[in-house]
Order: sequence, then structure tokens, then C-alpha cells
Amino acid sequence: MAGAHPQVLQALCNTNLLKTVGYGDDHFTSEAKDKILRACELEDGVVFFLQGGTQTNKTVIDRLLSRNDGVICCESGHINVHEAGAIEADGHKVLPLPGTDGKLQAETIRKYVDDFYRDDTNEHIVRPAMVYISHPTEFGTLYSKNELEAISSVCKDYGMPLFIDGARLAYGLASDATDLTLPQIAHIADVFYIGGTKCGALFGEAVVSRHTDLLPRFKSLMKLHGALLAKGRLLAVQFLALFSDDLYLKIGHHADRLAMKMKDGFARKGYPPFIDSHTNQQFFTLPNELIDRLSKEIGFELWGPRGEQSSTVRFVTDWTTTDQDIDTLLTQL
Amino acid sequence: MAGAHPQVLQALCNTNLLKTVGYGDDHFTSEAKDKILRACELEDGVVFFLQGGTQTNKTVIDRLLSRNDGVICCESGHINVHEAGAIEADGHKVLPLPGTDGKLQAETIRKYVDDFYRDDTNEHIVRPAMVYISHPTEFGTLYSKNELEAISSVCKDYGMPLFIDGARLAYGLASDATDLTLPQIAHIADVFYIGGTKCGALFGEAVVSRHTDLLPRFKSLMKLHGALLAKGRLLAVQFLALFSDDLYLKIGHHADRLAMKMKDGFARKGYPPFIDSHTNQQFFTLPNELIDRLSKEIGFELWGPRGEQSSTVRFVTDWTTTDQDIDTLLTQL
Amino acid sequence: MAGAHPQVLQALCNTNLLKTVGYGDDHFTSEAKDKILRACELEDGVVFFLQGGTQTNKTVIDRLLSRNDGVICCESGHINVHEAGAIEADGHKVLPLPGTDGKLQAETIRKYVDDFYRDDTNEHIVRPAMVYISHPTEFGTLYSKNELEAISSVCKDYGMPLFIDGARLAYGLASDATDLTLPQIAHIADVFYIGGTKCGALFGEAVVSRHTDLLPRFKSLMKLHGALLAKGRLLAVQFLALFSDDLYLKIGHHADRLAMKMKDGFARKGYPPFIDSHTNQQFFTLPNELIDRLSKEIGFELWGPRGEQSSTVRFVTDWTTTDQDIDTLLTQL
Amino acid sequence: MAGAHPQVLQALCNTNLLKTVGYGDDHFTSEAKDKILRACELEDGVVFFLQGGTQTNKTVIDRLLSRNDGVICCESGHINVHEAGAIEADGHKVLPLPGTDGKLQAETIRKYVDDFYRDDTNEHIVRPAMVYISHPTEFGTLYSKNELEAISSVCKDYGMPLFIDGARLAYGLASDATDLTLPQIAHIADVFYIGGTKCGALFGEAVVSRHTDLLPRFKSLMKLHGALLAKGRLLAVQFLALFSDDLYLKIGHHADRLAMKMKDGFARKGYPPFIDSHTNQQFFTLPNELIDRLSKEIGFELWGPRGEQSSTVRFVTDWTTTDQDIDTLLTQL
Repeated sequence: MAGAHPQVLQALCNTNLLKTVGYGDDHFTSEAKDKILRACELEDGVVFFLQGGTQTNKTVIDRLLSRNDGVICCESGHINVHEAGAIEADGHKVLPLPGTDGKLQAETIRKYVDDFYRDDTNEHIVRPAMVYISHPTEFGTLYSKNELEAISSVCKDYGMPLFIDGARLAYGLASDATDLTLPQIAHIADVFYIGGTKCGALFGEAVVSRHTDLLPRFKSLMKLHGALLAKGRLLAVQFLALFSDDLYLKIGHHADRLAMKMKDGFARKGYPPFIDSHTNQQFFTLPNELIDRLSKEIGFELWGPRGEQSSTVRFVTDWTTTDQDIDTLLTQL
Repeated sequence: MAGAHPQVLQALCNTNLLKTVGYGDDHFTSEAKDKILRACELEDGVVFFLQGGTQTNKTVIDRLLSRNDGVICCESGHINVHEAGAIEADGHKVLPLPGTDGKLQAETIRKYVDDFYRDDTNEHIVRPAMVYISHPTEFGTLYSKNELEAISSVCKDYGMPLFIDGARLAYGLASDATDLTLPQIAHIADVFYIGGTKCGALFGEAVVSRHTDLLPRFKSLMKLHGALLAKGRLLAVQFLALFSDDLYLKIGHHADRLAMKMKDGFARKGYPPFIDSHTNQQFFTLPNELIDRLSKEIGFELWGPRGEQSSTVRFVTDWTTTDQDIDTLLTQL
Repeated sequence: MAGAHPQVLQALCNTNLLKTVGYGDDHFTSEAKDKILRACELEDGVVFFLQGGTQTNKTVIDRLLSRNDGVICCESGHINVHEAGAIEADGHKVLPLPGTDGKLQAETIRKYVDDFYRDDTNEHIVRPAMVYISHPTEFGTLYSKNELEAISSVCKDYGMPLFIDGARLAYGLASDATDLTLPQIAHIADVFYIGGTKCGALFGEAVVSRHTDLLPRFKSLMKLHGALLAKGRLLAVQFLALFSDDLYLKIGHHADRLAMKMKDGFARKGYPPFIDSHTNQQFFTLPNELIDRLSKEIGFELWGPRGEQSSTVRFVTDWTTTDQDIDTLLTQL
Repeated sequence: MAGAHPQVLQALCNTNLLKTVGYGDDHFTSEAKDKILRACELEDGVVFFLQGGTQTNKTVIDRLLSRNDGVICCESGHINVHEAGAIEADGHKVLPLPGTDGKLQAETIRKYVDDFYRDDTNEHIVRPAMVYISHPTEFGTLYSKNELEAISSVCKDYGMPLFIDGARLAYGLASDATDLTLPQIAHIADVFYIGGTKCGALFGEAVVSRHTDLLPRFKSLMKLHGALLAKGRLLAVQFLALFSDDLYLKIGHHADRLAMKMKDGFARKGYPPFIDSHTNQQFFTLPNELIDRLSKEIGFELWGPRGEQSSTVRFVTDWTTTDQDIDTLLTQL
């Protein structure tokens, strides 16, 4: 990981000495909210800036769920496996359902919720009251517009808000395999967030909702979660930069292009992808010997436990990755 | 469900007009604790009386777990599916593992915990810090002494207390298929409870631990959970009755014998058990038509969703069940 | 403390062998709910039976408060001082305000809430979102109808439900100093409970609300809190007895009459009441020497720390107290 | 509020393109920890970097408290009034005690804890299990070395860790009125934090403890709280800058000197300080007319509600304040 994209850092430097009020009541924050709503083609709606993905997930979910409700997610969902129990720490049960390559199917959700409501003893069971998905998923895969609308349709039928974790949204929007635009996502999701931390910012996530009343007293809830940045404008300034000159999409395109180049290169060398990701995360199962050799010079990580002979690894591209980085990697295979 | 076994109710009537101090500081409570420790053949140890199973599970687990730790249980474990999120409501993640007929295997636990500790990124994952099992399980099945010791051994290796939910313990202790005595359970479990509500009491569960320091300031924690009965002696008086004249075991034997008679009868009529339970819960898959007919006169319940042609149902025997009840049931098959 | 009033215990004995479904879906529970609504002169409304005061307070408050809201109470309120943090354990801040003899004044509440809403930085402050009072209070004192209506009026102005803890309600309703009837309380409070544990039952509290939608999915929330009694009808049967033959009021009258006799007797002996309670709790400041002498034979308790020369003590009367008990006590002064 | 001190921002720019591992496992973080421990003259100890004050308070307190324990603080303590219930949201009761000018006295604490342990019914009361103070306090006042040692002594007597909120620590260390050095604070407090956000950083707080075992599995707890920054090195790089060339102290000295100049100026104009603060926060009670006039050009804020004739306001100096700013302000009085 590097710091921020140079244009983002430059924006922070340019505004560093300006004085504003704190806690997100400044004009940069207003501007950034307007800019994001416009990019989402939302006439109405709310935008909140938080600092990281887990913090955003736990604060949004804590707002959307009543005390004795739970959140449906894919078994591999970030909130279920890699957030140290952040959702449960706020008292909410995570309800994991099986998925495919990190994606939940609408019908899986419908069956689960339907069974719940048909069960006479459901007072003893946690009510599924919202759905969490990530796009791209933890495996780099993408929902199609049809799939997303199908999930949204189930959610509407049962009065469950749909929340999309967009920690890596830039790479989804820019993927050659997507048929979803930012405005479409904004109009399908009840709440979603535009990831900054993993997409060019120093840190920061922008929560967006087309509903003006779905996240009441949200800034106070952010404060309760330790998620209300004193110098809130730092987040706004970064998002203003990311949403100027199409920077956010450019960052996505750059990383996705290099990821596809990597995937093709691995395949040509006899290593087909472990999961067919069209975004900036690429997974391969490689001989341990090769892993050990590569790891001396290149940054990547084991995905799950090390196997006897071979293991699955994850490579991630971003705005700092260069064509030469990929070439160097591929020549070492 | 009926009320309490007549001997239990009689004990409450006999002591009704006596005045004692409240909140479990009375002499009945002291006596009942001593009696239970003796029945468990524990020289040292602590006993606490609570009012119901979910309350007991959530209070004990809340004491045993640190803020960012989780509790391992079987996927079918009561705390995972039928307690309305009671464990998560206190901030703790339930970590369900696959089991067989409601039972967890020691090796399943070992692998999971071992994987956790070998994962370099486990700071992002909830630490498995205790194990919850029920005996008898939610399916009426029983752990053998060897199985229990194997689980205890894994727990010791990783410093995890083993907590046994004994909501139906009488039926386990009295089963023809068990090789476990109350003292053995008391010496293997770090904490367990002796179920009263489902075994002859009006209500009440007795938490027992052979460790004197594993449940510090537990009465205050009970108060925090709304689990400290003002007239605490009501619980003690009932357990004194249950542990006099072997009443607790007699209740178990009676119900188990009739359950076995039921199981045999069903089998002879062509309905083998859905799960081979040797305790007071019996599960059968029956034609819906038969279910509908039986349900007009006999109390039992669907176990899971109703199927197209046939469904699985649960019958439960207790101290109120008679031989004639079983005969009547069997003649209707 | 003794057990239950003989008529209550008798009702449990009479119904002990009857079999009903569990968890409060039985016909006794339906009947008891109807009976209580009629006694409250409520055409519409909901009734739930829980097991004890702390459990009831924490479950009701947990339902009425959103995640980042708090509950106003008197500094001496039970939830603030004697429930081991039960409210905070569910994530809610208790907002104690100064009162007089255990009573909150409407104007104190209004000023606090008004200040909150006028504060520009109130996103950093817990929103006061409901009011908790006890009647009788922890000091045995009583709100007048006017006082209660004034509090209710403030609550309405700010959209805050008013919740009345009636753990000792019988003694309030029966007091010679009250101008409040049960139906009046039921129509002023948004939610309140009729205390059973301290008023003749073995245990049990009846939550009543004239709103049918203010406590949604409440039985599931009770389950989450370990507050859903398996044999729920035990609570209903007790309340049916308490609300037959005016038993509840009779218990209140009996105890209040003896408490007044005690208060007069102490006054004649030169010990005016520490607080002028017209209900079954009486407080006196006595010389330590007298306290030590009395405590050899009579049950009462220190109220607060023991002083150098004298200390404040609390005497409580109930259905078991006799005229002779009071006479004996008074002769020893 | 401006952004970061130029030297801090420069450090972020200088390191922006370097790639490191995430979540605080990088070499900048190691260096910054070492540098801070050396500045604290601690041979052993732990350092963790978090993002803001409320987040730090809630995460540290959540680690130090057991489930049914509470934290003592001054009534005016930040955790009690201005963190939106962040501590209670984690299940912990805040136990506010009266103080003077924002400071708690050792004897106030001792009496409270002593009363708790002498109370026979303390199972019904939240145990005071740690002490939170802020230095400087919310009113800009400072503890003396003697006062701090006296508090620490009470804490030791009762096994309660002492946690110091140092959100504004630079202004305390640099004050002309302090007799406390950073190493002294580090050796008296069990845990404290060195505030970055309010002392020259973009954001960030450094938690320090001289105990290596008092904050077990703390990074995982940070993750649970959404407080583990993905690019953790951003925090380390800023603290490396703050602790180079005495920058942290210089920032403190600069702001404190101008605050003293402001205080003297106000006094000369007939406005003595509302509280005698020797740090960068200054409080004055001014006529509303003057407040209205000043507020057109100068940034400050009301402290509490606006009065009829006059109100109390707060001025804060920092590294961006200039002598000319103060001169301009004073000429307008």
C-alpha cells in the first residue's frame, strides 16, 4: 500500500491552511456531498463521510437494524469473516447464507426470509431485516444489473434495505465486465458506499443513500461509534479530488487493465485464475515453490491456509501498479 | 407443558410462608448449593440459580468471553438458532461449526481453532475462546464419555472453557445409552448447568462450575442481565426437591422409558426415527395426512418447514406422560 | 420475604397439572391479558408478562430507545443506581436528573430536553428520548395526578414515551394519599408495569401499553433478553389470581395501613419519618444503638452507609405483616 | 480548524509513494512506537495509533473494563457529556463524580469506591473499576504532579487502572503552570494517549501504556471498533514528525503563549477569565452584544447556553494562531 493518489494528496496540501469549522459542517463537505449526489444522478439523498470500511459497515448496519434484527450476507462477506466481530459487537447477528464466488443469489435470500416468516416459532429466531452485499465482492467478482435488481426486488418484498459495500467500487465501475453505472447502483441500493481508502484516497468512504430519512441522526451515531472525524473536511477534500476529472474511474480503469493483463499472463503460463475476477483482485493457485520465490520480491498474500504442495494467493493492483510491475511478475513465472 | 412435578410444587407450598432474605442469600440457597455440589462429587465449586435456558446461556457466555472473543458451537446449537440473537445481543459472535446429529466432534473444533491461530491475519477475525455444547443435544443425541473428554482436551490445549447446556440433562443422565454420570460431567465441563425448567421444575437452571474463580462477580452480572430472582429461594427450594429421593433421575428415567417405547412403536409401524435419539425427544418423518390427523388430539410440533408430502415432527415426553398416552398415540398410527 | 400470597399459590396449584403450549401462547395468558386490560379500562392495548423488575425495565427501555438515545430518570431511580448497569449493558445511557424525595418534576425534564434541542452541538450528546419514573418511587413517595399529567405533557411535546416502573404499584394504588387510579395511570403512561414480585406473586411483572404498536416484536426481544418464560402461563395464572376479588388492591391496602400505623408509632416515640412516605416503605433515622437492638429480632435494612451516631433505615410491610408485628416493633422503640 | 502543521503534512508527502504493508505492521509504525517510548522514558511498554479522541476513549475503556464494571470520571468529563454515549454503547456505565474546574480530586474517588466496597448490596451496583481523567481537562485546567500521584495511589489501592485522555496533551506539557513532564505522566498513568488531532496532526492519537499486558489483543479490538486504519503508517508518519525537533512541544508552547496573552488582554479590558486556564483554551463571560460583534470576524464558540445578558464563550489557540490574531481580537474588546 502506498499513500494517496498524487491529485488527492495535492488537494489536501492546497487546502491545508484554510480554516473551517469541524465535524463535517464545513463548505468542502457540502460541496463534496453535492458533487457525489450529482455523480449518482440523485436529486435527493444524503451523503456521509467515514474513515474506513469496517467502521462504515458497522455504523450503517447499526442504524438500519433494530435491536433484535439481523443482517443477511454471503458466507464470505467481509462483515462475517474479517471484521473481528464488529457487527456482533453492536448486538446484531450476522446471518450468513451460501453464495457463489462471493456473490449472493436473490433466490437464496428469498427462500431464507420466506422460511423465516412462515415459521410459527420465529419469535425465537433473529429476523432477517436487511441485506449486505459487496460489489466488487471479496473475490473480485461483480453482480450484473439483473442480479442486483433481483436482490433489490426481494428486499422490497420484505421491507429490507439493501446495503452495498463499495470498498472497491472504482474497480467495479471501471471493469470491462460490468453493466452497472454509478447512478444505477445509487438507484438500486438503499444505502451504499463509495470506497476511498482502497481507491486512491489516504482514507475515507462516502456513504450514499437516495432516501433522506433512512439514516436518522446519523452524525450522532457516527460520533457514538468514534467515526466522526474532527477535521471532517479532510474526507470531503479527498472525495472532491476523486470526483474531479474522472479520477475515480481512471484509477479503477488503470488497476483493472493491469489486473486483466496479469490474469492473461498467468493463464498463458498455465495458471488459470482460481476465480474469474474482472477487477483489481486476482487469485491464483500456485506451487508453493513458486510462491516462495515470488514473495521475495513482490507483494501479494496467501488466501487461506498454505497447502501441502500448492496454495492460493491474491494479487492486488492499484494506481501505483505499473505495466512494468506486471511484466516483471510475469517473467518470473 | 404442565407446571412442576408435584413433589417440587409441594416443596414450594411447604416453604411459602417462611421469610428469608432475598436475592439468593438465604439458607435454602446455601443448602441447595451444597446438595448439588455433593451430587456432582465436587469438593470445591460454585453453584448459581437462574430462571431459564436462554438467560443462563447468555449470562454464562457473557462472563466467559472477553469483548472480542467468540463462542464455538454446533450449527444446530440452541444459541445459534433459537435464542433470538441473545448471545450477539451481548456483543459476542457465535461461531457455528458443522456437526452430526447435533453433536460437535473434537477434531472439528481443533481444526478450526488451529487454523485461527495459524492465520497471520487473525487480528481481523473473532478469536474462538470457549466451546458450547448441549447434552442431550437439540436432537436428543448424547455425547459419550470419550467424546466429551476429547472435546475437553482440545479446550484445554487452547485455554478455552467448555460449557455444557444441560437444559435436558435429566434425560441424558437417565438414558439407557449414556456412559456419563453427573459427577463425570461436572469434572469434565468447566461450567455446565442442570436444567430444571424442562425436567420437573416450574422454572430454574442450576449453573455449576468446579472452578471457584471462573465466574467472578457473577451475581452482579446476573443482576445486569435481569437474571437475579428477587425471591431467589424459590429456585433453591425446587432444586432441593429435585435432588431429594433421586427425583431428578426418576423424572429422566420415566420420560426416557416412554420415549423408547414410542420409538419402538413407531418403528414397528414403519416409521423409523429421523434421528436415533435415546432421550425424551423423538423425531419422525411422517406423511402430512397422518400429521394432520394426529395433531387433532396429541401435542407435538413440526420440526422445520412442512414438506410437500411428508414432514418431520418432534414428540417430547416428560414426567406427565403416561404409558396410556403412548399406547393411544401408537394405536393411531 | 415470603413466597406468594396464598390465593396466588393456590391458583398455581390448581392449574399445575393442566397442559398448555409454552411461551405465553396459552389461554391463561390470553385471559390474564384481557382481565388486565379491563382493569385498566383500556379498549385496546398490549400486555406482556415478565419475571422481575430489572428484567422488565431493561427489556422495555431497550425496545423504546433507538441506538443513540438515552432515558431520563431521577438520580435516585432504580435503573440508575441499583440495577448493576442493566440499561447501559444494552448500550443505552441513563440520563439522571435531580429530583425531590425520589420524584422528578415536569419542569426539570422540560428544561433538560429543551436545552438539548437548543444546543447546536447536540450531535455529540445523547438524545433524551424517553422518561422513566417509578410510582411509588424508591422512597415510597407518590406522584399526584397533576404531576403525572404534567410529565406526560412534556413527554408528548418532545415525542418521548413515558414509562412508569410499577414494581410496587399495589401500594401506590391503595395509598390514602393518592388521587390516581389504575385506569388513570394506564391512560397517562405510554408503557407501565404492574408489579407482581413485590405485591403478592412469587414473581412476575405485567407490562401494559395503551399503544398497540409501541412495542413491536416484543416477545422476540424478550427472548433475546432471556426474559421469555418457557411456562409463560405461570405468570398469567398468578396475575389472574391477583386481579380476582380485588386481591391486588387488598394486598396494597393491608400493607399501607400497617405502614401508616408504623409511621405514626415512630413519630409518637420521637422518630419522625426521614421521608414522608404514604406507602409500604418507611424510612427513619435512628440511633445506631437502637438499630443494633432492633436488628436482633426484626427484618429491616440500612438505607445508605451507617453513620457515626445514627443511620437511616428502611422498613417494608407486605401481605405477611401483621398488626402484632407492628405492635411488637413499636414497643421496642 | 486548519489541516496539519506543515512539517507533519510534509512528512506525509515525503512518504506518500512508498509502499508498506497495512494495518500498522509497517516500519514507520515500529519507528514511531520506539520514538514515543523513548520520549516517555519507558523501557518497556506498548503504543497503538488510533484516529480520534472518542474512538480512542471508547476502545481503551472497552479493553480495560469487564462486562459489569464502570468507569469513574469527572461530571464534566468528555466521555460523560460529549461523546454521544460512546462508552455506554459498548455496555459500560460511566460513573460521574463532582469535580472542580474539570478536575477530579483523589479523595472524591476514594470515598466513592470505598463506599461501594463497604455496601453489602453492591452486587446491585456497577463496580467502579477504572478512572478516566483528561489532562488538560475540558476546561483547560491542569493536574499537578502531586494531584496525579494521589489519584494514582487511590487507583492502586483498589486495583483500578488510571487512564488519562491527552487529546490536548501538548498544551499541558508546554504550559507555564505545569510541573509534569511527559515521562512523569507516562510513569503515573496506566494508559494514556498523546493527542495528535488537536495538536498539529491531520488526525491521530497515540495510546501509550507502560504495561505490556494491560491491553491484550488490542489491535483486534481496534478492528472490532472500526478503529484500525488500513494505511496505519499514516498515523505513524505524523507522530514521527511531531516527535522530531521537539515539534510537539513547540506547537504547545506557541499556542499556550498566545492563550496567556489573550487572557491578560481580556483581563486588562475588564474580562477576567471564567476559569483560570493556563493552556490553549480560554473561557470568558462576555456581554451578548460583544459576543455578537466579535463573532462576525473571529472564530470561537458559546460554552453552554446563551444567557439573557451575557454568556460564556471559549477561545482556542493552536499552531495557526498568530500574535496578530490576538492583537486584532483584543482591540475589538
